[in-house]
Order: sequence, then C-alpha cells, then structure tokens
Amino acid sequence: MITTGGDAPGMNAAIRGVVRLASAKKIRVFGFKHGWEGLITNSHTTLTARSVSGLLQQGGTILHTSRCPQFEKKNGMMRAAKTLKLNHVEGLIVVGGNGSIRAAQDFSSYTDAHLICVPASIDNDVFGTEETIGFDTAVNTAIEEIDKIRDTAVSLDRIFMIEVMGRERGFIALDVGLTVGAEIILLPEVKYRKHDIFHTINENRAKGKRSGLIVAAEGIGDTRALAGEIQRHTRSEVRLSVLGYAQRGGNPTFRSRLLASLFANETVELLSKKEGNRVVGLQKDRLVSIPLSESSSKEKPLDPHLLRLAKLLAI
Amino acid sequence: MITTGGDAPGMNAAIRGVVRLASAKKIRVFGFKHGWEGLITNSHTTLTARSVSGLLQQGGTILHTSRCPQFEKKNGMMRAAKTLKLNHVEGLIVVGGNGSIRAAQDFSSYTDAHLICVPASIDNDVFGTEETIGFDTAVNTAIEEIDKIRDTAVSLDRIFMIEVMGRERGFIALDVGLTVGAEIILLPEVKYRKHDIFHTINENRAKGKRSGLIVAAEGIGDTRALAGEIQRHTRSEVRLSVLGYAQRGGNPTFRSRLLASLFANETVELLSKKEGNRVVGLQKDRLVSIPLSESSSKEKPLDPHLLRLAKLLAI
Amino acid sequence: MITTGGDAPGMNAAIRGVVRLASAKKIRVFGFKHGWEGLITNSHTTLTARSVSGLLQQGGTILHTSRCPQFEKKNGMMRAAKTLKLNHVEGLIVVGGNGSIRAAQDFSSYTDAHLICVPASIDNDVFGTEETIGFDTAVNTAIEEIDKIRDTAVSLDRIFMIEVMGRERGFIALDVGLTVGAEIILLPEVKYRKHDIFHTINENRAKGKRSGLIVAAEGIGDTRALAGEIQRHTRSEVRLSVLGYAQRGGNPTFRSRLLASLFANETVELLSKKEGNRVVGLQKDRLVSIPLSESSSKEKPLDPHLLRLAKLLAI
Amino acid sequence: MITTGGDAPGMNAAIRGVVRLASAKKIRVFGFKHGWEGLITNSHTTLTARSVSGLLQQGGTILHTSRCPQFEKKNGMMRAAKTLKLNHVEGLIVVGGNGSIRAAQDFSSYTDAHLICVPASIDNDVFGTEETIGFDTAVNTAIEEIDKIRDTAVSLDRIFMIEVMGRERGFIALDVGLTVGAEIILLPEVKYRKHDIFHTINENRAKGKRSGLIVAAEGIGDTRALAGEIQRHTRSEVRLSVLGYAQRGGNPTFRSRLLASLFANETVELLSKKEGNRVVGLQKDRLVSIPLSESSSKEKPLDPHLLRLAKLLAI
Repeated sequence: MITTGGDAPGMNAAIRGVVRLASAKKIRVFGFKHGWEGLITNSHTTLTARSVSGLLQQGGTILHTSRCPQFEKKNGMMRAAKTLKLNHVEGLIVVGGNGSIRAAQDFSSYTDAHLICVPASIDNDVFGTEETIGFDTAVNTAIEEIDKIRDTAVSLDRIFMIEVMGRERGFIALDVGLTVGAEIILLPEVKYRKHDIFHTINENRAKGKRSGLIVAAEGIGDTRALAGEIQRHTRSEVRLSVLGYAQRGGNPTFRSRLLASLFANETVELLSKKEGNRVVGLQKDRLVSIPLSESSSKEKPLDPHLLRLAKLLAI
Repeated sequence: MITTGGDAPGMNAAIRGVVRLASAKKIRVFGFKHGWEGLITNSHTTLTARSVSGLLQQGGTILHTSRCPQFEKKNGMMRAAKTLKLNHVEGLIVVGGNGSIRAAQDFSSYTDAHLICVPASIDNDVFGTEETIGFDTAVNTAIEEIDKIRDTAVSLDRIFMIEVMGRERGFIALDVGLTVGAEIILLPEVKYRKHDIFHTINENRAKGKRSGLIVAAEGIGDTRALAGEIQRHTRSEVRLSVLGYAQRGGNPTFRSRLLASLFANETVELLSKKEGNRVVGLQKDRLVSIPLSESSSKEKPLDPHLLRLAKLLAI
Repeated sequence: MITTGGDAPGMNAAIRGVVRLASAKKIRVFGFKHGWEGLITNSHTTLTARSVSGLLQQGGTILHTSRCPQFEKKNGMMRAAKTLKLNHVEGLIVVGGNGSIRAAQDFSSYTDAHLICVPASIDNDVFGTEETIGFDTAVNTAIEEIDKIRDTAVSLDRIFMIEVMGRERGFIALDVGLTVGAEIILLPEVKYRKHDIFHTINENRAKGKRSGLIVAAEGIGDTRALAGEIQRHTRSEVRLSVLGYAQRGGNPTFRSRLLASLFANETVELLSKKEGNRVVGLQKDRLVSIPLSESSSKEKPLDPHLLRLAKLLAI
Repeated sequence: MITTGGDAPGMNAAIRGVVRLASAKKIRVFGFKHGWEGLITNSHTTLTARSVSGLLQQGGTILHTSRCPQFEKKNGMMRAAKTLKLNHVEGLIVVGGNGSIRAAQDFSSYTDAHLICVPASIDNDVFGTEETIGFDTAVNTAIEEIDKIRDTAVSLDRIFMIEVMGRERGFIALDVGLTVGAEIILLPEVKYRKHDIFHTINENRAKGKRSGLIVAAEGIGDTRALAGEIQRHTRSEVRLSVLGYAQRGGNPTFRSRLLASLFANETVELLSKKEGNRVVGLQKDRLVSIPLSESSSKEKPLDPHLLRLAKLLAI
C-alpha cells in the first residue's frame, strides 16, 4: 500500500480501513513510505490492526507521500516492480488522485501485482467516481474560511475574489462558489469574458449590493491581475484572497471518512478475489470499480447544471 | 412556504433557494411563520430575492417552526386551507421531516393547493431520498464533538457511551459510529444483547484496549442505566455523554447547503409545471420526486451493510 | 513529571514545554504514567525533545491520568516517595488542578523532591493564578456549542437551559454565560431564588423575547428538575442541554497553548534554581509562583463584577 | 458611535455592550455608518437594546467601516464636528485600531464631544492595552489553519512558510509562531539574517526533521522571494501560504467577546462621568483608561521574552 501525489484528508482513514478489513481476511499489509519512492528504495513497515488505531480522524498520511521523478522513468518502474517481487507482494493499493492513477496505469505493464487504485484527492477529478476521498473536507474548509471573509466583505462593502485550489479542474471552485453564494464563479473548464464580470458587478452595485464574492479556481490564470482589472473597471474595491494549503489538511469530515471506509472495503473485496488493475469508485451512490485503463484515459466531466444553478441563485 | 417540525441546518438555504429560483420565474413566495400555526393564523410575509440575502450559511430557520397540536385536528386543517384560498396561494412548500410529510399528506385532502415537500431533518428518515437537508451537518457536528471526547477517553482509559439524536431511527448513530470508530453501535432498529456488549468490551480489554467508544441512538432506551450496567459487568469505567441540541444547529455544511439548493430547484420546477402532492429527493445521486402518499406511508430502510462494516472496522 | 486529575487541553503542550526547556538546560525528564499511580508502580519513560514533537496542538495527555485512591493513603505516598528516590529524581512536576495541588501538598511531607505544580484544569479554580491551562479552550468549546443551540432556541421560540461543567465552582458558567448573552446565569457560589428566574423569563416574554438562554454550572443542583419547574411557572417551553465531556477535549486554543508554554518556562526556571513546593501562576499578566501550602489552602474568589455585568448586558 | 479602520471580530459585541449599558443609564446611542464617513454625511440610526440583539457572536460590524480619505483633511473633520453638534452628541465612541486612535486624536481639536476610543484590531498594536478586541480570535483562526497545513507539511516532508497579517507589527506572528511550534518566526521589529534561517533549517534536517514551519508577519518584506531563496539554499522543498482575510472574520472567541463587554462597560462609565479623550484598555488584567494623546503618540512594545521562548521551544 502506498499514498501518492498531494495528500488528502481521509487518506489515513483509508489506510486504517484497508488494514483492518484485510486483517479480518488474514491478508498482510505492508506500508511503503513516501509513495512510489518507497517502492524504489524498498522502505516499508508492516501495518497491523493495532498500528492503525486512532487514524480515522487524522489529516495527512502516516505513510507520507512525495513527488518521485525517478518513478516516471522506465528504470524507476522496474526497480519498483522488483521490490514487489522481492517482498512477495500480490497486490498493490495506490491511494491517490488523477496523476497517481495514470502512474499506476503505466506501472501496470511492469508488474504482475494486482493494482487497485483508491481515489483520494481534494480535486475530485478522478474518472469513474462521483467523489474522491478528501473532496468534501476541502470544500467544507473552503466555505468555512469564506464565511469568515464574508464578514469583512460586508463590513467594508468590498468585492472579494477568492482563489481556491484546482489547477486543472474546477470541481472545488464550482461547489464552493455555489454554496457560499458567490456572485461569479470562474472555472478552468468554462471560458469567461471579463466584460461579463464587470457588467455583473456594476449591475449588482446598481441594485444596492455593495459587497460580493467571486470564487475562482487557481487554474483560470492570474487572479491577482484579474482582481486589479475588475477594480479598475467597476469602481468597487476588490481584494484577492488565496485559500492555501489548509484546504489539503485538517480532520476529515464525515463523508471523507465514510468514503475512505467504503473504498477500503471494495478494495479488499477485489484483492481477495484476486482482481487487479481497477479503480474503485462511487457511482449513483453505489460502490463500483472500473478498469484502470479506462479511469486513467478519460476525463471526468463537470456538471453544467450546477453552474447554471449557481448563476440563478446569485441574483 | 413553511418550515415545520424540528429545525435542521440548511432550512434557511432552502428558503433562499426557493425564493430566488421562484423569483426568476416570476413566482411570488409568501413565508408563513411558525409552521402550520402561521397557516391557521394567516401570519405571513412576502419573501423577496433581497430579503433572503445572507441566509445560505445560517442555521435555524427565519420562518420559525413550532409544534402545532391544533393542526392535527380537522378544524385546524380547514382553517389552514382557508388561509391558502384567501391569499390565492397555488402551491404550498413544506420544508420538514417525516412528521411534516405525514401532516402534509393529511392536509392534502383539505386543499387544492399543490403541495410539495422538501425533506429537511437531521434524522435522515424520509422515504424517497437518500439524504435529507441537515443530516450531513448533524453528523459532522457529532463526530467533531466525539473526536474531542476521545481525547479524554484515551487520557483516562475510559469507555464512553455517547448518545446521539434519533428517537426512532438510527441513521445518525450508524453513520456517526462508523466514522468515529466506535467499538459498539446501538440502534433502535437492531436488537442488541447486553451480554454481547460486555463480551466485546472485555475482549478489547484483554487485547490491551483500555479506552473505547459506544455510540447509541437516543431511541434504544435508557442509556444511563445501560452505561451503569456495562460498568458493573466489565470492570471498566464507563461514562455517558448525551450530545444535545447542538446537533440541530450551526452553519450548514457544504452538502446540506448544496442539497437545499438542489431541492429548491426541483421544487420550483415542479410548481412551475403545476405538479403537486410530491416529495422531492435524491436517489442514486439524481434529483427526483415521488408521490406524497408514497413517502408518507413507507419507512426508509437502514443499510445493514454499513453496520457489518462498522463491526469489521472496530477490531 | 506527571499529569493528574481530569485532563485539560494544553496538558500535552505543558509536557512539551517542560521537556524542551529542561533539555536546553541539560535536565533529564521522566514521564510517569497514569498520574500518581505511575509513581506508585514506578512506570515511567524518558521524555526527549524529539519524543514530544507534535504535542503542542493535541488535546488530552500522552502521560495519561487517573484517579488513584491508593495515593490518598499514607502507604501509597510512601511508595511514591520511594520511587522518586530510586530513580534519583530531584524535582517532581505535577500538572493538574485543585485536587492535584492538594494531593501534592500532602505528598510534600513524604519526599525531599522539589515539587512544582502547574495549574491545568478546565475549571480555573486554582488559587494563585488568574487562569489555568485548558480553561480558555473549555469556555470556547462551550460557547461554540451554545451558539449552535441558539439557532434552535430562536427557530422554535424556546428557553434553553445549558448545564456546563463546574461541580464546585462557577468560573466556566460565569464566563460562558456572559459571552453567549445568557439571560440568567446560575452558579454554585451564588444563591438564586426560583421566583426571580420565573420573573425574569416572564418579563422577557412580555417584552417580546420568546427565546432565551439560561447557563447553569453543574454544581447548582438538579438542573433537569429546575428546567421542569421553570416550564410550569412561565408557560414557556424549556429544554435542558447538558454540555458534556467535549469541554475537556479538543485542540487547545492559542491561550491554553501559550499559558502551557509560559508555565513550563517558569517551572524549569524554578527547578534549575532548586526551588520547590511552589505553584506557578499568572497574576496581573505576569508569571509568578506561590507556595504550595498557600495555593492548596485558599479558595480562588469569583469576580462579582462580572456577574453584575452579565445581568446588565442581558436586558 | 462609529467603527473604523479594518474590521475585527468582537466589534459587534462592543456595539451591543455599549448600547445596552448606556441604555441602562438612560443614555441614547446613535450609530453612524461607514466610520468617519457617516459623521461627514450625517448618516446614522438610533441603536436600542433590542436592535443589538444577537450581535454578541457575529463577526464584522453592523455599522460598517471604511477608509475615509476626506476625513484626513481639515474640511472633513470640521464637517464631522458639525454633525455631532447638529445631533447634540455629547460623546463619540470610536471603535478601532491604532490608525483610528490617531485620527481621533487629530479630530479632538475640532470637537467638544467627549472622545472615547475602544481598541479593536486584530493587530493588537494599540498602546495602553495588553490586548485589543479581535486579536485572540485572529490568532486562533491562524493557528487552526496552520494546524491543518502542518498535516501536509508532515505528509510531504516540506517546509512551509506561513505569512500572517501584520503590516507593521509582529504581535500576531509572534504569538502564532510560538503556539504552532514554528521553527522560525520573522517579525518586522526584529532584523533577521537569511544565513541564520538557512543554518537552522539545515541543522534541523541533519537532526532528522524533514518538515517545518516558518511564521512570518506580512511586514517583513517579500515572503515569496524569501521562500524561494530558502529552498535554493537548503535543498528543502519550501512552500508559501499566505493566510488571508479569514483572520479578520469569524465569530469572536470567548476572550474577544469578554474584552468587548468589559471595554464597553469602561466606556459607558467614562461617558457617564463626562470624561473624554481617553482610550480604554486592559493593563495587568485590570480595566483602565489612558489619555488619547498618550496612546496615539506611543508605540506598544513587543515582548522580547516571548521570542526567546519561541526559539528555545523549537528545538
């Protein structure tokens, strides 16, 4: 078992879940440290039902994670595969996001081990699951912070542009924008025209709305420059606030913990049936798994309905 | 529009959603105060897009709610129906839980107004929807509190029995128990044998686990007495903590706000199509609605799979 | 070093502080487990600067704490004194509340070790310090919960009686009541007349205030019975909510962490000067220490000014 | 009464306190909107005991605040003085920070009204008081966020530089750094040498500490550039996180609410004794007031002891 890519709240809950459910089936679990790096260097510990005690509510990951450029090369993958063989590992559980799943797909041609991916990422951008472990926590962290910023926005009659995480995808920005009542939501997937932004803000001002919120995904470009432009074109005071790494941390919420436990269950079921090269997921509120090759090659679509709804609600 | 029964976080978000989406369709919305009582006394205000500003993140309900024994009688229902006629009300939106839906069903034979029920209840006990507005918030409030209690449980090597809300149903207790890592979960729907509880605790003690959590729904009976019995039969120190009304309040979480907005959308869609006597809901992650008569007469089943999973994870 | 009595948020921060500051002075620190019990059984570990890493923000106490009836007898104290001698312990740091300080005073006639007490208790009832470690956290936990309960109080037009911790003293109840805006505050130190309570509530009702908060310390007697009486005499719906053990846990607030670090500093200073039998404290915002015999024999007074202020503010 | 400068959590609690305590003394209170601007434009409302209901726990300020360049000129001050005369205002309560107090001092030569300043600022930089309203809340908000970031720091073995508010003063950074366990704290008041930073980090790395926290006040200069330099000189991965406006908002903590109520009390006492041109404050845990001229001309010193303590604790 490894955790890879950016950390996400609930990764520890997934570790606990896998270890305890595997232990009930007499399956032994090794934890390799620092993601793929630990596979290359063969740095691991045995995880037991007792050693994962108290993990359910902890943010971060006790197995650590890291970027591992070495693993991107053929040589790195071969060494990792060797480590698995050496330790007689039958199945490898990869807990991580989109990038981790693509890396797992590449790795699958180097190893006979059954690969199971567990989608854990605050970005929610994994094809094959409606939700990833950590997403619900990240969105809640963001809306709690923005609720606080709103106090200042209202008190000082200001427009706040809030940049939330999401370098490539706008899942966080969309759900956050909708549930903090943002007047404008900017996503990497949706082209926006500056003129429309100016127009909306000027219109709101005319209606008497002197404060307001713009929620933008980090992937939309230079938010600082955009905030400046908006200020110049709307005679409103506009401030930028970049919500940072706190979105990745913190105790996982109920849903992130539950999802981690459910995914762990599905994972152990697959492994005990000797199935591999699959990504577990939640579809139509049911636990499922899809082929690794499918999840790694397809892009999860954004729900355009939500964006329309957000616009209607922000009048 | 009325809010009835116990309050739930996200009721205000539902009010905001309905008013703004209705306003976009030029539908006028009255808010009747104190639930059914406001219909009997014809006490209402007009709700406008502006007047519901800032409601998204507020707990409670600005329309207030109350128990209304008068409404349970024929005479009360007739007066309420008269109020609707008097104000030329075409549709009545009832935001509330299980009891409110049953009352709406009874009321439907007294009025021609299109009745739409919006499931909002921390108890999650409405047939026809996988989740009710407020449930996610209540569960998160509970697990945050229990995470704190766990500090003491571990420091003092004690067993804590935590009573969570749920007079008739165990949805909160089950999800809370699973995600705080309770060793034992007690639900109104599942018969338990005291002997099994003693056995589990003694076994854990033998394994070296000196602290532990028991999560119990309030509907299982006298938790204080049970905690005392467990203490006597296990030589463990057992403390009871009753999580109270805080579970009903607080700013709604992301999911409770999102659900409120989605249900509001479905509600306004139904009303604008002149459909009535329906309960909106979420099924397989899709917005749906089912007949009021069906929702009010059927009982939502508990997921037995989750209970098994909780047991497996608590080793 | 031991932690004794009820746990308090910031005890771990105090352990970290003592260990790191002692380590800078080349003083070795043992941690005895389960409070006085660990002294009797000689169960200890060496604490190092590294081993206390990450403790600053953790609730509870890694040294555990327990009630230890054995220590209340002469024989227990003698055995504890022997343990100290056996391990060549020169100073004993007792982190705990009022009861722990009295026990330390008793113990002082059995040992030559320099005893230093560090006031840590959610109850804030230690003579010689304006604040104890953990008090600020407990009060904040309580007001956050009551803010949530207020949502329901307002939505349902109800009176809520909230019982907060404080079996003998009303420090928590007073500060909580003042800062949640309670209409009535009931303390063990102040006699109340039921008639005055009924009168205040009826008067508020006449002024149009249909909801309200009563904050009561657990030490005032049977709050459930009182809530019932108030309901009968005021025609208001009155609900009781007992805030439980969550008040003891959770991550310590800024002040509880700061106080823990400052007390740790004062403690290590005293020990390095070979001073003993003292209780560290904060007086007029300055770090001080007073004799153990004084702190253990005097009772910390309540500030009557605050109570008057609370009444004036609750109009 | 006005609220001016940046908003701070607890300003609303101060408004509530002043209005209710004044009302008990039959003193009428006007609230002027948008700070000094409202004095210039004579835009005010009468505040009553009832109208400030529910304010205790609300962040922001219902009176709004704004920067008012007009007021910095003679003409603006004269118009403001005229407004006070016109409305027969005897005393003016200015709730705000350092800048507001200096403006009040300037204004005092234009008006006969008794000026009382209530220190409210997250920056804690007002001479004459150990604490300002809002400071405790801001520090707690910051440490809660940093606790979350620490999850990622540990999981990814990274150094995080956290920029907290404080353009001119380091009070927030110092207290935050001390209570999150930062390895390095950078303040505007204390010159730092980059070489020392590199050295500390490299030393920690040698000791096996792969993650770490640097807390920096925004006033220390270009934190982004500094983070880059540290990364280059230490072979550590360094990330910057700028904690934004959330530090200004949110529900006030217990201390911020308490301080607001105590300051309100002192303010109303002074006004009822016809005293003016004073700044209320907390000194050695006692309520005091000092001359406006003194508070506006002196600089509050930083506690150098705390900085030393922070260094000792971060080993």
